[in-house]
Amino acid sequence: MFDLPFTLTSLHTAYRDGLPASDVVEEVYRRIEEVSDPGIFIHLIDKAELLEESAALGSFDPARPLWGIPFVIKDNIDAAGKPTTAGCPAYQFLAETDAFVVAKLKAAGALLIGKTNLDQFATGLVGVRSPYQPPKNAVDPAMVPGGSSSGSAVAVGHGIVSFSLGTDTAGSGRVPAALNNIVGLKPTLGALSASGVVPACRSLDTISIFALTVEDAYAAYQAAAGFDAADAYSRAIAAPPLSAVPPKLRIGIPDAASIEFFGDEAQAQSFAATIALLKDDGADIIEVDFTPFYDVALMLYEGAWVAERHTVLEDLMRNTPEVVHPVTRQVVGAALKLSATDAFRGIYRLKELARKTEPVMQSVDLLCVPTMPTFYSVADLDADPIGPNSRNGTYTNFVNLLDMCGLAVPVAPRSDGRPANVTLLAAAGRDGFLAALGSRLEQAAPHTLGATGWALPKSTDLVPGATAGELALAVCG
Amino acid sequence: MFDLPFTLTSLHTAYRDGLPASDVVEEVYRRIEEVSDPGIFIHLIDKAELLEESAALGSFDPARPLWGIPFVIKDNIDAAGKPTTAGCPAYQFLAETDAFVVAKLKAAGALLIGKTNLDQFATGLVGVRSPYQPPKNAVDPAMVPGGSSSGSAVAVGHGIVSFSLGTDTAGSGRVPAALNNIVGLKPTLGALSASGVVPACRSLDTISIFALTVEDAYAAYQAAAGFDAADAYSRAIAAPPLSAVPPKLRIGIPDAASIEFFGDEAQAQSFAATIALLKDDGADIIEVDFTPFYDVALMLYEGAWVAERHTVLEDLMRNTPEVVHPVTRQVVGAALKLSATDAFRGIYRLKELARKTEPVMQSVDLLCVPTMPTFYSVADLDADPIGPNSRNGTYTNFVNLLDMCGLAVPVAPRSDGRPANVTLLAAAGRDGFLAALGSRLEQAAPHTLGATGWALPKSTDLVPGATAGELALAVCG
Repeated sequence: MFDLPFTLTSLHTAYRDGLPASDVVEEVYRRIEEVSDPGIFIHLIDKAELLEESAALGSFDPARPLWGIPFVIKDNIDAAGKPTTAGCPAYQFLAETDAFVVAKLKAAGALLIGKTNLDQFATGLVGVRSPYQPPKNAVDPAMVPGGSSSGSAVAVGHGIVSFSLGTDTAGSGRVPAALNNIVGLKPTLGALSASGVVPACRSLDTISIFALTVEDAYAAYQAAAGFDAADAYSRAIAAPPLSAVPPKLRIGIPDAASIEFFGDEAQAQSFAATIALLKDDGADIIEVDFTPFYDVALMLYEGAWVAERHTVLEDLMRNTPEVVHPVTRQVVGAALKLSATDAFRGIYRLKELARKTEPVMQSVDLLCVPTMPTFYSVADLDADPIGPNSRNGTYTNFVNLLDMCGLAVPVAPRSDGRPANVTLLAAAGRDGFLAALGSRLEQAAPHTLGATGWALPKSTDLVPGATAGELALAVCG
Repeated sequence: MFDLPFTLTSLHTAYRDGLPASDVVEEVYRRIEEVSDPGIFIHLIDKAELLEESAALGSFDPARPLWGIPFVIKDNIDAAGKPTTAGCPAYQFLAETDAFVVAKLKAAGALLIGKTNLDQFATGLVGVRSPYQPPKNAVDPAMVPGGSSSGSAVAVGHGIVSFSLGTDTAGSGRVPAALNNIVGLKPTLGALSASGVVPACRSLDTISIFALTVEDAYAAYQAAAGFDAADAYSRAIAAPPLSAVPPKLRIGIPDAASIEFFGDEAQAQSFAATIALLKDDGADIIEVDFTPFYDVALMLYEGAWVAERHTVLEDLMRNTPEVVHPVTRQVVGAALKLSATDAFRGIYRLKELARKTEPVMQSVDLLCVPTMPTFYSVADLDADPIGPNSRNGTYTNFVNLLDMCGLAVPVAPRSDGRPANVTLLAAAGRDGFLAALGSRLEQAAPHTLGATGWALPKSTDLVPGATAGELALAVCG
């Protein structure tokens, strides 16, 4: 039991063979104690409550795709009867109802264990901008855990739970995946309802999913996805079953002049190895100038979008600025200088920059980028809380501004043993296509799961199915 | 010749029978003299230049859909080598090239006669907010000409030209159509490129088309439409040939509790008569609560969008406020109090309000509304320059905020002889569907054209074609 991998297949096999869900609950709490990182949870639910819930599940029901599957959620997402803090104790309120997505996951049989630490108000990519003790990176405690969804990524990295919810505006659902050697699924904007989520940039936010394997992340996505009329930003996005990827994909990557690793040779080599793998698998690799994407990325903090964060923090920053994390205050404070006129100028500039990326996106089926350009340590962030954070967003900041979906996939470790991870990016609505390709890629790039040492299970055989084009069309319907 | 209606069919028939284009040019200038309203044009092109251009057309070429067709453009749209003022002499610049749309119309054979007066910077629905002498309403000079595209509507109303370009953000391509008894085609946002157009609210602007008949407006639209990569807001929108409308349409109209005529009984009766006509024609009339649409409409000036106008006027208002029309200054000055945070709050509120209109739009094929609730006179506007202007936008202000296309169609005159006009509204991309229905409606509601006294020509027989659903799908492709 102590060694039971908490992947969906492994748990469901054990459940089918008679393992009681209460045993898994006990094991979750044992692992929490064993990991012994008080930075992971802001609110851990009482074991007694979970034991009751697991009993209420009745006997194993394979029709419920997440029956008995333990998960955690970032503490900017509501769970009924539990406090939500968004990483700011002064902001805390008691949620009356489950967030729309949490309710769907529970309805699918999943067991919510607790609410996790984050960069305050989901502002950051590092995981150390919290007034609570930050969690430790699951793989290497000297490194930052990654953020803003730090606790959710670390919990999965340790195998404490099968999957977790983060949120992703600038890359908070992908960078922590890379740092903890796990999968980060960043859905198309609007695919997962934001009802019951504390916004960061409301027009650019999405709930995201961490898991140990692509199939597990996608299974949670399928259970969570659905149109929600109460969320003005919700969209009806397809979550089709996974099917085989088309044989001859065109994959765009940053060209030699525009790719950026900030001098990290091992990261460059690792990325090149993954691209070689994709090429061997039959893909056409198209090198593209990434300058337009970087120009878009700059808009997120240098454009007017920081004012979206200010819509959430305005009262706190005016009345009790001392309760806001100093770095968060500095970042969001930039909004005070911005007029509505500036906001619309920023929106125009984004439209113009997005137009420049369109020919690139039309010439490829997807993009593949490093999830992060390099690694930063906790000490690096102590020395400079802003710079390394910004650099960590090199390959993530532009994604939601351009309405793409993304999938961060662990691959074979770097030459120095550190985890390696690439992100697949495609047009809105192609989440299923990315998951199918991501599953194929993780199988082809041997690695163990998170910090657990568990082997990657063989993936389910995918049936030949819709082509990339057909999947794209499904979004219109 | 003096009586030759300047509809496309009439002119092309005359051309085919041997009429030289130069005769039509002479007649255009004769009519300008006859109408004798110095308020229509800000810049009238020399007749000599037009005679050269008409000679350069060569012999009649029916393959060019606008061969020898005279038109004018609102003076916020560029014509190569001519000044653009946007109704503000201090803003004037010499345009180096034709606006994208003007170039397309000229390529189709159309002859540009001049540039017309407008509410300064396209801010207004009345046509009297110009430092130039405002044009007179073509039908009744006591009434306002309508704006902001005042000169363009009046020129068509008098039959001086066959069609004209306006622009439409809040209703500037529809309200003046109603006031001058003509057609106003307000395309889907992005269908007509904005390259070479002075923006009002850049994210909500479109060039619009005035003509004497729906078929003529749509023919000009087809010649003008096309994707323009240089305009970040351009979209590839279908401009299919007109085909017969489906037999059983569901048409939404404001219900008794929410319809608004500000006490104008004749306007109410006229609208009811048009709806009765549509019902007789087989349509299902669905009464809907219009409150959500009115709530959206309020956002245009009470939300943050006025800051879009400020992006254009900021320098002028800071450095030389005296050159800006006092009413325009008052309206746009509201932007000075708005922060970027306010802008995003406005964007969120619009998203939420738009969501409330979705069930209505999904339950009908189109909406039909009065183009204006009532008439206002020049004296009314002298007494109160803001109130009547706002009320004139009752049925127009929400349309671009909700990304609909619209078509203002003249119908049989009111009981007191004033012109009557209704607007058909549908989802983005359904311009062709609206034009087909509008053409059928104008035929069913006998009226003369503009202020000319010319009879409405019988429309071309439409072939049974795509259904409403099929047309909607074409937009996705």
